[in-house]
Amino acid sequence: MFQSFDTVIDPSVGSARCAALRQELNSRGLDGFLIPRGDAHQGEYVPPSEARLAWLTGFAGSAGTAVVLADRAAIFVDGRYTIQVREQVDTAVFEPLHLIEMPPATWLGGVLKPGNRLGYDPMLHTVAGARRLRAACEAAGAELVPVSDNPVDAVWTDRPAPPVEAVVLHDAALAGEAARDKIARMQVAVSEAGADALVLTQPDCIAWLFNIRGADVPHTPVPLSFALLPAQGRPRLFIAAGKLSDAVREALDALTDIDQPDALVPALAALGADGARVMLDANWAGDALATAVTGAGGRVIERDDPVTRAKAIKTAAEIAGARAAHLRDGAAYARFLAWFDGTVAGGLDEITVAETLERFRAETGALKEISFDTISAAGPNAAIPHYRVDRASNRRIPPDSLFLIDSGAQYADGTTDITRTMAVGDVAAEIKRHFTLVLKGHIAIATARFPVGTSGAQIDALARIALWKAGLDFDHGTGHGVGSYLSVHEGPQRIAKSGHVALEPGMIVSNEPGFYKAGSHGIRIENLELVTPPAPIADGEREMLGFEALTLAPIDRRLVVADLLDAGERDWLDRYHARVLREIGPLVDPQTRAWLEGATAPL
Amino acid sequence: MFQSFDTVIDPSVGSARCAALRQELNSRGLDGFLIPRGDAHQGEYVPPSEARLAWLTGFAGSAGTAVVLADRAAIFVDGRYTIQVREQVDTAVFEPLHLIEMPPATWLGGVLKPGNRLGYDPMLHTVAGARRLRAACEAAGAELVPVSDNPVDAVWTDRPAPPVEAVVLHDAALAGEAARDKIARMQVAVSEAGADALVLTQPDCIAWLFNIRGADVPHTPVPLSFALLPAQGRPRLFIAAGKLSDAVREALDALTDIDQPDALVPALAALGADGARVMLDANWAGDALATAVTGAGGRVIERDDPVTRAKAIKTAAEIAGARAAHLRDGAAYARFLAWFDGTVAGGLDEITVAETLERFRAETGALKEISFDTISAAGPNAAIPHYRVDRASNRRIPPDSLFLIDSGAQYADGTTDITRTMAVGDVAAEIKRHFTLVLKGHIAIATARFPVGTSGAQIDALARIALWKAGLDFDHGTGHGVGSYLSVHEGPQRIAKSGHVALEPGMIVSNEPGFYKAGSHGIRIENLELVTPPAPIADGEREMLGFEALTLAPIDRRLVVADLLDAGERDWLDRYHARVLREIGPLVDPQTRAWLEGATAPL
Repeated sequence: MFQSFDTVIDPSVGSARCAALRQELNSRGLDGFLIPRGDAHQGEYVPPSEARLAWLTGFAGSAGTAVVLADRAAIFVDGRYTIQVREQVDTAVFEPLHLIEMPPATWLGGVLKPGNRLGYDPMLHTVAGARRLRAACEAAGAELVPVSDNPVDAVWTDRPAPPVEAVVLHDAALAGEAARDKIARMQVAVSEAGADALVLTQPDCIAWLFNIRGADVPHTPVPLSFALLPAQGRPRLFIAAGKLSDAVREALDALTDIDQPDALVPALAALGADGARVMLDANWAGDALATAVTGAGGRVIERDDPVTRAKAIKTAAEIAGARAAHLRDGAAYARFLAWFDGTVAGGLDEITVAETLERFRAETGALKEISFDTISAAGPNAAIPHYRVDRASNRRIPPDSLFLIDSGAQYADGTTDITRTMAVGDVAAEIKRHFTLVLKGHIAIATARFPVGTSGAQIDALARIALWKAGLDFDHGTGHGVGSYLSVHEGPQRIAKSGHVALEPGMIVSNEPGFYKAGSHGIRIENLELVTPPAPIADGEREMLGFEALTLAPIDRRLVVADLLDAGERDWLDRYHARVLREIGPLVDPQTRAWLEGATAPL
Repeated sequence: MFQSFDTVIDPSVGSARCAALRQELNSRGLDGFLIPRGDAHQGEYVPPSEARLAWLTGFAGSAGTAVVLADRAAIFVDGRYTIQVREQVDTAVFEPLHLIEMPPATWLGGVLKPGNRLGYDPMLHTVAGARRLRAACEAAGAELVPVSDNPVDAVWTDRPAPPVEAVVLHDAALAGEAARDKIARMQVAVSEAGADALVLTQPDCIAWLFNIRGADVPHTPVPLSFALLPAQGRPRLFIAAGKLSDAVREALDALTDIDQPDALVPALAALGADGARVMLDANWAGDALATAVTGAGGRVIERDDPVTRAKAIKTAAEIAGARAAHLRDGAAYARFLAWFDGTVAGGLDEITVAETLERFRAETGALKEISFDTISAAGPNAAIPHYRVDRASNRRIPPDSLFLIDSGAQYADGTTDITRTMAVGDVAAEIKRHFTLVLKGHIAIATARFPVGTSGAQIDALARIALWKAGLDFDHGTGHGVGSYLSVHEGPQRIAKSGHVALEPGMIVSNEPGFYKAGSHGIRIENLELVTPPAPIADGEREMLGFEALTLAPIDRRLVVADLLDAGERDWLDRYHARVLREIGPLVDPQTRAWLEGATAPL
């Protein structure tokens, strides 16, 4: 199983570890230290060797920061984790604070004293993040001090070794573009930005560029590494030698020089000493990388990383792969839905459901990983949008309720991400109304057409207006970008208030409006959508982009109040279901097929 | 009449005037000079004394900039004026360029030579604008030189005197807040921004703050002036003494010190010399004002002007005034529509229609001004969104066509702005389809509900999605803010891709989607909408804001394809029409009333 349901909760660790860290800070003449959750790659997952925040505090969430001062300490988490942090962390040691309402920089402004020296590890804070912290320290008359030797590591006696999982080559036939060609294309972008070299710190960008994959962190098939892409000449890949088999090394040797990760900072300093202009993304690259360049006399050019956008626009081969992956996943998912429907009345719990879905996907023979921990949520658990089931929270699915499951798979040809909300027994009319309003939002995105240049922020309200008119809303974005056998969450595009990047043909984006009633039920309907090229419309004047649903799975018809849909919406649902039956029907066993015919019947 | 249809076109002036200016520049050791269209207030209209661009080049448009160098000169205008500029300007003297595709800063970067000295009048360029120009000059190795004595004025021998129209007090009962209270409220905002004083340069902000009105420019009832609002103590109003009667001066004396406009720069220098922190809006305030502060040793705090937002949120009295103004305007408009409908078959031209509408508004006895030059556009003229009729362009309304009229009135209690598109004879089915798609967009905005914090950018697509799905769009924003007996275009809110300011209860915004088919027809349907406070919705959980239509006038039912509307849309139109009849019917003559009953009948 790729998913574990065991969570080790031990808030008692914080007290002694915090004391040890304070002693270490004292010996170094520091008045405090920042412990972010992220590592130098700022990814969604960190390997155990980089889980400093969890080791120090006990907090196991995916975002947060701690600050340890001589006489107080705080942990900052967002709205998803305000309950969890109190269960996992000794709040007598670490005061829990809200990351958005009281950001660390604001809090520090109030508690730092003039002359204080606050340490930070400049590999773990981005250029932009360090800039905010520095401003806060300066305003308080304190100093933000870079510390190259992380003091947490000095007291973390049983720190695990960094991962050295094997790198594999990603088939160029699946990528649709040879690494050599990607490198050449990105070198043009580096040139055009007036830079001599580009620093890459995001493992999925590097994996895309070199057509490699790895397994250093859960769920995202990437090796942790850095890279330096010069405007001309050979790139340099900074990766632990132990991850490369002879065959992989040989293939990479043809493309790039290879160094150990700790050679990156000296390489940047050497570029700086030559007066080079080094391009990096201030929202992703570690502060240490910028200061290595500028400290040696070079110039930093802060720009959006061009690889991020290039990676988001899928090649024809990646699009074909995504379609194939979704057919395969759709067949496993139909089997799962049929199984669920036939079994749930007899009693099921959240973990069993998640395990069964993973098993059906594994039985395709193509499953490389799940793309994130499945959100398998019964009744009121589904009202927590980011709920993750563990042995303690595991709930039996009650009769006459909704069940929500958000899950995805990593296949070599594509990454999937799907949410369905299913009726269990009889569901109240009010809940069906909520479901139908969410469905209207989903359909509004699925059927949207829009001109070149339109951003996700511009269409986000289409997913919400039916809910808004009913006095309802949901507190998350409508959609995120999705990688090709890479991260299930990738930029730069998103459908959200903050999604100001244009949606371009070939991008993949999720369409997942929802509604959550605390203590009662949660609803989300999610398909992945491919942005389609500008195409003419009958009697129109301008070509318009649009979406093609990649995800193929029935939407629970029993929860639809047909009278709340207009003719166009009913037509969309019937056509979508007809397509699901046509494309998935031939791929499933007779029993599933029979169930599918019922589940995809016209309204 | 407030509108004149005479346009003086004389492109021959440019050659001699440009030569005279070059001689003047040469005598001052300048290699070039910038001539923007705006004055120190950056408003939509400038008085004749500030119309330097028009005097120099002949160009009469409302936006543009000229650059005169020793051996070449260019005029930059936006897409609205690319045809007009060639009619009004000697293009052998001034090369016409596209303001957006080739901004002056970009063009200068290519033509300036190292060591060149490019002059600019720092009162006429904003802080942000001067910054962009300075960067362009520096990149070219040239110098941007502030010139306090505008060289155009030195050669403009018959330059008109500045306007000294009388200032009148704006009734506090109409404003809903005493000037004293507004001043105190804005002083808190100045304090909270950490500033010692705020510079105000926008005449409508100053008119709002002191509850005064004027007539120095067409259509916007404001006196040209500056003001300085200290965090504590008495404000200073910088205004020509000749505009103030004894009574007005006495009333203002109770609120503010009064100086001549040319005392502003010395006053800022004095503040600077005291080390004051002076707040200004870099997108509105002249560069000379910032340098007066910093040059004397003070600090400039660049912030959005807080008066702009305060002014946009109407008081209860202003809302009541807006409703009264729209009833009055609606009665005149119904009379106009009835007259048009009964007369057009006999033959009408664009100017006659605009004159008649203005006459009917004047006959209310309350018309102070029109709020902008009426766009009265027959047939293909309506496909030019910013068309302005003059004697040369005046077109007879052809049979079997559309007629578009966009107009507004200034009353003491409110400003109106309405567009209607009317059927003349038989209209093709395809054109009715276009009209109905625009109407769907209008209704989508009119019926929208949205949570606190929602911006115009978030809902703009609601006005477009029906058009987008038909392969159509319109190339202007969906809506702009509207003042209370002030400018018909005011910020900070707008419904547009760029409208990132939250819509707040009490704001007034236009709702004006359109469609334009070049050479054929143009459609726009515009009502003003009041943003309503958060209100509960039956069976909902969150209170939502919404819109209340202020404009009350029939939408031409003959152009509506009922089958393209859904039940909710048809219901909105019927209810809106019922409301128009109920509220306007009692205010009009029997003949108009009879017409109105037909025009507002259910679909």
